[in-house]
Amino acid sequence: MENTCKITDLICLPDTKLPRVVVVGGGFAGLALVEGLKKRNVQVVLIDKNNFHQFQPLFYQVATSALEPDSIVFPIRKQISGYKNVQFRLAEVVEIEPSRNLLFTNKGKLTYDYLILATGTTTNFFGLENVEKNSLGMKDIRDSLNIRHMMLQNLEQAAITCDDEERDALTNFVIVGGGPAGVEMAGALAEFCRYILPKDYPEYPSSIMKIYLVEAMDELLGAMSDKASEKTLEYLKNLDVEVLLNEAVSDYDGKVVQTKSGKMLLARNLVWTAGVKGQFPKGISKESIVKGNRLKTNGYLQVDGHKNIYAIGDIAALISEATPKGHPQVAQTAIQQGKYLAEMLTDLIDDKPSKQFKYKDKGSLATVGKRRAVADLGKLKFGGYFAWLLWSVVHLMSISGFRNKLLVGFNWVISYFTYEKSNRVIIRNFKQSSHIDSPSDEQFGTLEKSENMQKTKIDA
Amino acid sequence: MENTCKITDLICLPDTKLPRVVVVGGGFAGLALVEGLKKRNVQVVLIDKNNFHQFQPLFYQVATSALEPDSIVFPIRKQISGYKNVQFRLAEVVEIEPSRNLLFTNKGKLTYDYLILATGTTTNFFGLENVEKNSLGMKDIRDSLNIRHMMLQNLEQAAITCDDEERDALTNFVIVGGGPAGVEMAGALAEFCRYILPKDYPEYPSSIMKIYLVEAMDELLGAMSDKASEKTLEYLKNLDVEVLLNEAVSDYDGKVVQTKSGKMLLARNLVWTAGVKGQFPKGISKESIVKGNRLKTNGYLQVDGHKNIYAIGDIAALISEATPKGHPQVAQTAIQQGKYLAEMLTDLIDDKPSKQFKYKDKGSLATVGKRRAVADLGKLKFGGYFAWLLWSVVHLMSISGFRNKLLVGFNWVISYFTYEKSNRVIIRNFKQSSHIDSPSDEQFGTLEKSENMQKTKIDA
Repeated sequence: MENTCKITDLICLPDTKLPRVVVVGGGFAGLALVEGLKKRNVQVVLIDKNNFHQFQPLFYQVATSALEPDSIVFPIRKQISGYKNVQFRLAEVVEIEPSRNLLFTNKGKLTYDYLILATGTTTNFFGLENVEKNSLGMKDIRDSLNIRHMMLQNLEQAAITCDDEERDALTNFVIVGGGPAGVEMAGALAEFCRYILPKDYPEYPSSIMKIYLVEAMDELLGAMSDKASEKTLEYLKNLDVEVLLNEAVSDYDGKVVQTKSGKMLLARNLVWTAGVKGQFPKGISKESIVKGNRLKTNGYLQVDGHKNIYAIGDIAALISEATPKGHPQVAQTAIQQGKYLAEMLTDLIDDKPSKQFKYKDKGSLATVGKRRAVADLGKLKFGGYFAWLLWSVVHLMSISGFRNKLLVGFNWVISYFTYEKSNRVIIRNFKQSSHIDSPSDEQFGTLEKSENMQKTKIDA
Repeated sequence: MENTCKITDLICLPDTKLPRVVVVGGGFAGLALVEGLKKRNVQVVLIDKNNFHQFQPLFYQVATSALEPDSIVFPIRKQISGYKNVQFRLAEVVEIEPSRNLLFTNKGKLTYDYLILATGTTTNFFGLENVEKNSLGMKDIRDSLNIRHMMLQNLEQAAITCDDEERDALTNFVIVGGGPAGVEMAGALAEFCRYILPKDYPEYPSSIMKIYLVEAMDELLGAMSDKASEKTLEYLKNLDVEVLLNEAVSDYDGKVVQTKSGKMLLARNLVWTAGVKGQFPKGISKESIVKGNRLKTNGYLQVDGHKNIYAIGDIAALISEATPKGHPQVAQTAIQQGKYLAEMLTDLIDDKPSKQFKYKDKGSLATVGKRRAVADLGKLKFGGYFAWLLWSVVHLMSISGFRNKLLVGFNWVISYFTYEKSNRVIIRNFKQSSHIDSPSDEQFGTLEKSENMQKTKIDA
């Protein structure tokens, strides 16, 4: 295969005689794997294009100014500090050359004995170019910041314009996708509008901000129980969110959202949570790429057609009779697969046999604004205040780092009693940022961007 | 005068019969003025290109990952909430047309009865284009973030490169300017290097990071007492900062810093704190612009040659026999001038006579890393631990908002005992940001950028 990568210096790494396990991606899956491989007789190289782990389940709270980004991202070097056999390198992976066990990044190349892809997913706009151009996804902490800044900038602009229609457009919000991200975003926005808007913008009636949630299926939270779906719909209606079911967005010019059924929604704020697609470097054999741009693996999470390449987390599609569509793309799958692969690889290197991966569903939770949530725990399905408490505890416990738990807890307690949120400041111009900082779909496809980044650092 | 502004719609404002006082800039001076004018019989319109107030004295702590930006910026709308006669508008002022009492912004125009410029200063590179292109100032919260990201990105790059010289360049730091900003930055960096580097980058010896402080005069903190200057020098030397006095930077290509005396310093990190210059909209009569691009005012802070235009804070140069160079460009001057002008304008509108502005020097403080500071309080000059405690209390008390006091206090207490700092995460690519987000010298000079911002919000 012809390698198109231009930067081919070796990335500097300690020279050990141990087998080298290269892990791409410091998300839930990648970190669980690295954690499991510490103190084992392997050299682990963790590569990520960010120097931090992101706690995706709370992105919507950053987007709505409930939390500051630093409380839900955690430095990878802090996470792995003390792991003597683990090296972190900040680089963007571009391409794999399996025939030579070579990995090319925007910072140079490195060799691997075992390559594990934990590169996750990115927003899928399903080819709706105008929507992609004029709206924001929520798959990266920068997206959350961009949404926050878009919203705050538009609220400020609404105070400046004398045009009533324009003011409505600037204050209206459309969220596409009735999954957990969309539902939680809608709930948080509704509370922002109810409790924050009147304080910060006394010039507006709080009724000025209309919130629409658009879902293509006939229910919200399709992956959860019918009971959860119904309760969620009820909660959102009580928060004055207008939910449109069996409705899909067909076009968006930045001001008017058009739906398949011909509806027109006036809104300059559009957040797209309606789909994701896997992202991974070039060089993987076409045959192993399946629906949703995921990588087909066997029961050992080994990517089809590649001897020493494995996939874990959202991009892994372990297709079996029990799981014809692979496992759900959620944090618990990622963590379980990371832990499993650590054991499996160790056994493999020690020439021991190992079992295939088994997924254990611990249930699902989703929250709708303050004091309301829904829970499916096996047979037990319930909603309301207790579900919300459970949601809060589970999420607080899963956040990396004592400091972050403390910060998030501190903010939640304050906002529980006061509905006050953290500082609503616009530090970046969201539009410029959304183009420059947000991960683009081509991030693994081309090297231009990567080279600029390289240059940036070298010229710095 | 020919007005070059293209956006001429009126900015939407409540129509009152009260005299309209337009305040440009929400820094210490502008906020003190607005505070003083609340409940008075005037309509106050506060305009700022940011929706937040910035606490400049702690920028260096954001730059060195000691604090997160949100703890030292404060939303202006929160600050003025409840002030019935005050309106905030997020806009960038472009030009004044004094003959018609008109103010042009990137969002539209508005009229004023009294115009108060509190637009502060920006970094002055004194025409050194290469230095400006390849280094970062520290006059905006975005600068602080850019410095942090530059430093962290370069430390990561140093782990990747196999070239020893390049690694040295990436880890070395040059700070230009021996005023409070430079001194405090050098001290904080030295501690980062001593206490954080070994934990986050076990691959380096902590000796790898060299810190240079370059000052053109023969002493540090020239504005303070000789005792303070000497103690500061001693403190920095104990922290292994290499201080170069009577030395000026003449050129910088992004890797090698050249000095007037012919020295060459290898460093990819250069922070410029060596000078500031006033920034204000076009339309002010040339005669009233004095050294440092400040506006010459009389004893009532009225700008020379303009009947109803006033200047306060860093851009005001109240030239008198007592103050041939104007007052020091520090927060206490700004706050005193803001408070004074509130009284003066009220008297003026009520046709009452008023006294001229009198500055009361409350003394100066500067800190050099943890547990060390210098203080000049009138005749009382001292340094050490108590000075540092005093510095901490004074700064904590001056930060806007209970939440921010709490956050900063929380971080300081933690780092006091642990030297642990907040999350060292690179959320933005610093170089791109430094061009896009940082205030440029032309921010008042041209409209292109402003129009883009306008567009940004409309296209959102």
